[in-house]
Amino acid sequence: MRIEIDGTRLWNELGTLAGFSDTPRPSVTRIVFSDQDARARAYVKGLFTDAGLAVREDAVGNTFARWEGREPALAAIGTGSHIDAIPHAGAFDGTVGVLGGLEAIRALQRAGVRPRRSLEVLLFTSEEPTRFGIGCLGSRLLAGSLDAGAGETLRDKDGRTLNEVRTAAGFDGDLAGVRLGPGYYAGFVELHIEQGPLLERDGVPLGVVTAIAAPASLRLFFEGEGGHAGAVLMPARRDAFLAAAEVALAVEAAAKESGAVDTVGTAGVCEVFPGAINSIPSRVKLELDIRDIDGDRRDAVLRKVDEAIAEICGRRKVEARKEVINADSPAVCDASIVSALSTACERHGLAHRKMVSRAYHDSLFMARLAPAAMLFIPCRGGFSHRPEEYASPEAIAQGALVLAEAMATLAL
Amino acid sequence: MRIEIDGTRLWNELGTLAGFSDTPRPSVTRIVFSDQDARARAYVKGLFTDAGLAVREDAVGNTFARWEGREPALAAIGTGSHIDAIPHAGAFDGTVGVLGGLEAIRALQRAGVRPRRSLEVLLFTSEEPTRFGIGCLGSRLLAGSLDAGAGETLRDKDGRTLNEVRTAAGFDGDLAGVRLGPGYYAGFVELHIEQGPLLERDGVPLGVVTAIAAPASLRLFFEGEGGHAGAVLMPARRDAFLAAAEVALAVEAAAKESGAVDTVGTAGVCEVFPGAINSIPSRVKLELDIRDIDGDRRDAVLRKVDEAIAEICGRRKVEARKEVINADSPAVCDASIVSALSTACERHGLAHRKMVSRAYHDSLFMARLAPAAMLFIPCRGGFSHRPEEYASPEAIAQGALVLAEAMATLAL
Repeated sequence: MRIEIDGTRLWNELGTLAGFSDTPRPSVTRIVFSDQDARARAYVKGLFTDAGLAVREDAVGNTFARWEGREPALAAIGTGSHIDAIPHAGAFDGTVGVLGGLEAIRALQRAGVRPRRSLEVLLFTSEEPTRFGIGCLGSRLLAGSLDAGAGETLRDKDGRTLNEVRTAAGFDGDLAGVRLGPGYYAGFVELHIEQGPLLERDGVPLGVVTAIAAPASLRLFFEGEGGHAGAVLMPARRDAFLAAAEVALAVEAAAKESGAVDTVGTAGVCEVFPGAINSIPSRVKLELDIRDIDGDRRDAVLRKVDEAIAEICGRRKVEARKEVINADSPAVCDASIVSALSTACERHGLAHRKMVSRAYHDSLFMARLAPAAMLFIPCRGGFSHRPEEYASPEAIAQGALVLAEAMATLAL
Repeated sequence: MRIEIDGTRLWNELGTLAGFSDTPRPSVTRIVFSDQDARARAYVKGLFTDAGLAVREDAVGNTFARWEGREPALAAIGTGSHIDAIPHAGAFDGTVGVLGGLEAIRALQRAGVRPRRSLEVLLFTSEEPTRFGIGCLGSRLLAGSLDAGAGETLRDKDGRTLNEVRTAAGFDGDLAGVRLGPGYYAGFVELHIEQGPLLERDGVPLGVVTAIAAPASLRLFFEGEGGHAGAVLMPARRDAFLAAAEVALAVEAAAKESGAVDTVGTAGVCEVFPGAINSIPSRVKLELDIRDIDGDRRDAVLRKVDEAIAEICGRRKVEARKEVINADSPAVCDASIVSALSTACERHGLAHRKMVSRAYHDSLFMARLAPAAMLFIPCRGGFSHRPEEYASPEAIAQGALVLAEAMATLAL
């Protein structure tokens, strides 16, 4: 069999998908269950159907497109990723895994492959935490890592529950039914852009992921005392923003001092209330993301951050309240899937590197459900989550080719 | 003559005015040229008219209500303040000076006073910088401290120019015509809540202001490099928010180190872009307010802040751009007006303290046009610019009483 990827078609489909956005090109903003998300889903489902795949949607909007194997009762081989995008993001994060997975299946169809196991490409709902504050919503529910009660407890910034929003988007039914059985997949592989600079820098076309880091996501609320910026003297102040500023710097310091290059810490959200130039900030919301491929090392950073919050807020007489949004364990990828990906790279004469994923992916949760691994392709400058995000048509096609090859092997 | 303030009526009018708000009581949000601002203006103009005052509005919406004196050709005596309110502010900032000024005039009318000079109460447009980024918009134009070109250069966050917005609100005509001649007022007195804790703490009912501090307002734009919070390693980062956090802390340090209790510095606005938990901040807008009653000392703090910005942004490889929104000079109040206010306090057996205003007021600009001073009343806890802002009916009535007495003297 000779597998051939239609790289032009895949590239054009990625371009079309990027147009479903609330911000103009090259920026992509596609929040889960928004109108643009619905339009994008309809487009992708149409492509699935055109390929002869059987499409199924679950109660949270995870979308499964199945190419039935010769022995449909066997556990399937899955691939896929997400299409939601944070505000002002790029066109390749997630989408390459969904449309690349589809093209891998189409390529196997064209090559005349008749796999024993069924192959499925998935579109996961809400990998990004933008709307409901928690990432990997769909894959968490599939893996049973999130309780169905989340439908009522998770709310968007307008106060609407997940259940209200998903129902309005046309996805109803019991969230408890989303969970997959342990025998559903025999293997899962996610194709994704690296979102880091290493492959591009070293000229390596493919990365085979052996471990996935997991973030601890924290939401902090600081409450000090407001007042007029001219009238309240410096010693009397309890400025919530200055406390938050110190905590953000303490996160950076704790991540840098961990002693490992893989430890990262970020304060990506800071909202200041009331937010007027002549008013002392009384309340601040700060959101932190701290991650590592080593869970113990990450937890040591979290403890340092807790100590810093206590010290800073005690000194500044600012109240702090902490919500742990999630604190998932990192995942080690499955050796047999890693091996299948490495072999597939070699078969096509493509160099690869074994590497860790510092970014978070649906595969972190799929790894709880089935043997799983990921395949990375280079992206320009390592940029992601911004409009400049870019992977070349060649890199994407190579990723889809190796994915197809590995899926064919795993489905034998 | 015996001057009697109708404190109950004044209190009720303040309560009614507080209801014109985009946020629910006790919070007051009244942005200039919003629908609620228009409703509030209509209410106040009705009260002016009911008192038999002649109402005039200028091209920027400054509203003059005139009680003609026996010699109308003479320079008038003015009082007044503003009714706009920052988001989630209180019910007394500014409004006490407008409605208290009106009640002072009504009390003089009831007492049978026939002043030689005309008395005017003013409602100044946009004392707060919320919408157009610059405070004291109306009084700056009256004093010739702001060029009429500001109508085209000042824009709100939706990009609409001052001229577009004021015209839509019903105020048109040439902004250059707003400026008053130097002989228009013989004196100006503004009644205002202290917005600081001193009068309440020491049980002193009135403060006579001898100097008004002025802020330097700066807008800083930081530009670093975004990226995925999981994928970009700490040493490679150029996080715009961490640079802004350090600058905010440097402002606090510089204000504290000035050696004078009157030096204050605040970072009241911090907007982080893209503002997602898993995204490194690429751009931040930070707004600073640095003030003192001594202009040289304030400028020394500004220089320290500039040095800090250069050091921090150089070290973090973040670009910083600075806009000076304003850097007005502090004002010294007029000795004869201060004396009239002190005498009025004594005549009514009310203790007073001479003090400085650390907050910014329209009187800062009226002092460039005419002899001017201010009269402060206590406010609870010194709170201002927040819903808890409160001045008692008694304190407000005492302020209006002393204001009436002083205006009668000045109008003789």
